[in-house]
Amino acid sequence: MTMDTSEIFLKNCWYVAAWGHELVDGAKLARTILEKPVVMYRGESGKVVALDDRCCHRGAPLSMGRIEGDDLRCMYHGMKFNTSGKCIQIPGQDLIPPKLGVTSYPVVERDHLVWIWMGDPAKADPALILDYPPLSDPKWKGLPGYMHYDANWLYIVDNLADFAHLAFVHTKSLGGSEEYAYKTRHIAIERLPRSFKVERWNKDDDAPPYHKRVISDKSARVDRRNMAQMHIPGIFFMETMFAPAGAADSGNYEGARQYRNCQYMTPETRRTTHFFWNYLHDFDTGNPNITLSLYNSMVEGFLEDKALIEGQQRLMDADPDFKMLAIGADAALSHFRWTLAKLIKEEQREAQPLAA
Amino acid sequence: MTMDTSEIFLKNCWYVAAWGHELVDGAKLARTILEKPVVMYRGESGKVVALDDRCCHRGAPLSMGRIEGDDLRCMYHGMKFNTSGKCIQIPGQDLIPPKLGVTSYPVVERDHLVWIWMGDPAKADPALILDYPPLSDPKWKGLPGYMHYDANWLYIVDNLADFAHLAFVHTKSLGGSEEYAYKTRHIAIERLPRSFKVERWNKDDDAPPYHKRVISDKSARVDRRNMAQMHIPGIFFMETMFAPAGAADSGNYEGARQYRNCQYMTPETRRTTHFFWNYLHDFDTGNPNITLSLYNSMVEGFLEDKALIEGQQRLMDADPDFKMLAIGADAALSHFRWTLAKLIKEEQREAQPLAA
Amino acid sequence: MTMDTSEIFLKNCWYVAAWGHELVDGAKLARTILEKPVVMYRGESGKVVALDDRCCHRGAPLSMGRIEGDDLRCMYHGMKFNTSGKCIQIPGQDLIPPKLGVTSYPVVERDHLVWIWMGDPAKADPALILDYPPLSDPKWKGLPGYMHYDANWLYIVDNLADFAHLAFVHTKSLGGSEEYAYKTRHIAIERLPRSFKVERWNKDDDAPPYHKRVISDKSARVDRRNMAQMHIPGIFFMETMFAPAGAADSGNYEGARQYRNCQYMTPETRRTTHFFWNYLHDFDTGNPNITLSLYNSMVEGFLEDKALIEGQQRLMDADPDFKMLAIGADAALSHFRWTLAKLIKEEQREAQPLAA
Repeated sequence: MTMDTSEIFLKNCWYVAAWGHELVDGAKLARTILEKPVVMYRGESGKVVALDDRCCHRGAPLSMGRIEGDDLRCMYHGMKFNTSGKCIQIPGQDLIPPKLGVTSYPVVERDHLVWIWMGDPAKADPALILDYPPLSDPKWKGLPGYMHYDANWLYIVDNLADFAHLAFVHTKSLGGSEEYAYKTRHIAIERLPRSFKVERWNKDDDAPPYHKRVISDKSARVDRRNMAQMHIPGIFFMETMFAPAGAADSGNYEGARQYRNCQYMTPETRRTTHFFWNYLHDFDTGNPNITLSLYNSMVEGFLEDKALIEGQQRLMDADPDFKMLAIGADAALSHFRWTLAKLIKEEQREAQPLAA
Repeated sequence: MTMDTSEIFLKNCWYVAAWGHELVDGAKLARTILEKPVVMYRGESGKVVALDDRCCHRGAPLSMGRIEGDDLRCMYHGMKFNTSGKCIQIPGQDLIPPKLGVTSYPVVERDHLVWIWMGDPAKADPALILDYPPLSDPKWKGLPGYMHYDANWLYIVDNLADFAHLAFVHTKSLGGSEEYAYKTRHIAIERLPRSFKVERWNKDDDAPPYHKRVISDKSARVDRRNMAQMHIPGIFFMETMFAPAGAADSGNYEGARQYRNCQYMTPETRRTTHFFWNYLHDFDTGNPNITLSLYNSMVEGFLEDKALIEGQQRLMDADPDFKMLAIGADAALSHFRWTLAKLIKEEQREAQPLAA
Repeated sequence: MTMDTSEIFLKNCWYVAAWGHELVDGAKLARTILEKPVVMYRGESGKVVALDDRCCHRGAPLSMGRIEGDDLRCMYHGMKFNTSGKCIQIPGQDLIPPKLGVTSYPVVERDHLVWIWMGDPAKADPALILDYPPLSDPKWKGLPGYMHYDANWLYIVDNLADFAHLAFVHTKSLGGSEEYAYKTRHIAIERLPRSFKVERWNKDDDAPPYHKRVISDKSARVDRRNMAQMHIPGIFFMETMFAPAGAADSGNYEGARQYRNCQYMTPETRRTTHFFWNYLHDFDTGNPNITLSLYNSMVEGFLEDKALIEGQQRLMDADPDFKMLAIGADAALSHFRWTLAKLIKEEQREAQPLAA
């Protein structure tokens, strides 16, 4: 872990660090992000603060400390730090050397998400945060989820980059049929400077189990459309529509059901990931059982992914020299990995002082 | 684990990878062998197949896949591999690049054992397999056993190379008395090019507990003869005879009871081992309680070994520089380790291209 | 662990290896000390012996062996070692090569403590042992304690070097009030060649919870004096007095209650520690509940320390490059670390052969 992480992580960008509800009741949430220990808490004013989770004095965990107003006190020798990380009190010592303090990370709470900036704070422009409107639109209902992965976040990005996996990994949960992998093709992959877009139709098929559970006519054939966009550094937005079979060709989507889905992959370390998500529906929103059913279906589906993805990680740990071979469906993930590598390289170059 | 393993393991030889009965009911057995992840399964035709347990595409575990006929389908994106490891289907893609595929390891199923060849497949001659006739002879009865060791396989080889350990490790199970170590000596150690043979008599002693449990005259004094052979890379065959005391000198073995025992040590990694065994008897073979009693006695005895051998490994892990000092009884194990090292060196030399 | 430990540990000094009561009923106590595996046992004569916990033959754990008189027999092949580590029997072999043997460490049992010398045995002078008289004085009662720390021993030394931590870590157990950190100051820090001394008064305060539990007038205000000395390599002695408020200024200590406390930090490895202690009282010594209450209060308080100190270690493991920043109260710990580093350096220099 002492290794320089500049070649691994993109630092000058916003990552999801927590759901807002994780910071209630005086919680001091200790979470490692990009291999840095961070403590997050909500001050008395309601402001969320993120500090290095190590007292600058002897490295005691500040997450074992005490919130005082918006400040945090280390409960080892009582040193107190304000929201910008500056040490503002040392019990038993009158003078506080100005260099005493801990790193404070820029954070923004928006639409129930806590965003953090791990890179150069001068560049932490909140306008760069990628909002996902359904999260704040009362028309859409969903439950926020969190899962911890024992795997590098890019394996999760890979997973989301090719819907064919729905057919095999999620046959009985989110997918519905293996035919999905054979019948449907990518209608479009769009390569953008910091993302890719994929649109995929699956026509005239049974509804997948997770959708069946929340609709009444379970035998109706459907046309399914998935439109997804994956953004740097690992932010996934997807619109899903189930329309009566034939809709795709006729263009008449009457009676369609829609979902909105966001997923956030935040590296904990180079081989573990924080995974946040919400899967939202805009129909029957007065019925909390629908919301809960969809949440449970997602947990079921993500656990299927997790078993497989953590299997990849274990095999890669055992033999880091293993070489993957690309297939046609890898266009999206290849673009993403290539783009990310380029951005990391640029970031490194900028961070370096010019040679004399 | 990324280290080159060529100096550690002999590769061009057959190892026991599984008991045949481990591959029933569609099992996809994931087992690491010589630090390579292997998946084994029995195809519809009955043929046993062993493939690299990593899909060539994204490294997903093929042991999470599905057997189709004699082939195996990865259940991530649905790629299908035949028994030789060649990729024969990619759902949603018509053309399959010829280089797509996974390593297929030569396997032979014989006498309930599945043998695997981890080295150059061109050299995988089934005639090189060391058969143990009692395993297929209906006259001999026994139950196949498996145990996992957190220790390098050579510590188990060492253990089997000196019967004096019966006296101290197995006093109350397989040994019987500490006198065994003092009274008996090696009658013969024979050093062969790929093995050693040891014969040891223990005269006029009580029967050891495990033998007493399966005979009626528990107080009779016995002459005990162990004749063992340890083969490269870690295959142990032993004939044990308990004859009425005096038989050793008179040559009259009437009333003797005999056992046949095979043990197979297959490296999982440089510090863990797969251990297979069978302990067979040719008397009272109609009584399954005898067979079960012997099986249980062996488990008891092997657990005694395991506690000690894993202790050795832990101490060696903590200080790999520890130097062992030889005693007289180490002749057999020294020959074996020296022979194995020589064979590994030869294998490496052959594998290297000639210098220009 | 293969790394040279000469730069980490001071070797030519006495460490506490065990409490004498840990070596009863034929116990063969396996304990790693300064990263060396040691087995300790009490021979038939009552003498405590400490040997390398690895048979010189194949590295089997001698702690799985058998005590015979004052000797220890390895229960693998039966080799027997005397108290000086010399091999004195090999079953089945008449001649014993003189070099066969294991390291024997000098040990001294005194005042219920077993002291061990891990360095040059020629220098192991029992006169160098730091006795703590209350341990052998019948006037003082206490219960011996042991705790295992997942942390480098110097973090425990640090902890004991600044009593301000009583205010925050032990507010509700050993400390009593946060004011302690603000009101009281070090009256004196004395820097000595192999130790430091600290004396700290806290005047006119409530008694801390652990003391309240064992006195009758729980509301009386007290003056508290802590006088502590920390010795190389990690030995802590402390006298604590609670006198009626005003005593500090008047010098009249009538009605005071006193405690004597010793704590021994012995490195297991560079990141784990054996922690031994006793907290003794000289009042109401006929009441075992007082003794037990104090013991329990100490366990409670040490567990508070342990949570925090192991947190420090975890954070340091994750980022060994973390730099601590000193405050005024670090004078004692800085002196100790500086002194220890100097002694280790001197020891290394002495151990090195002179350059030609």
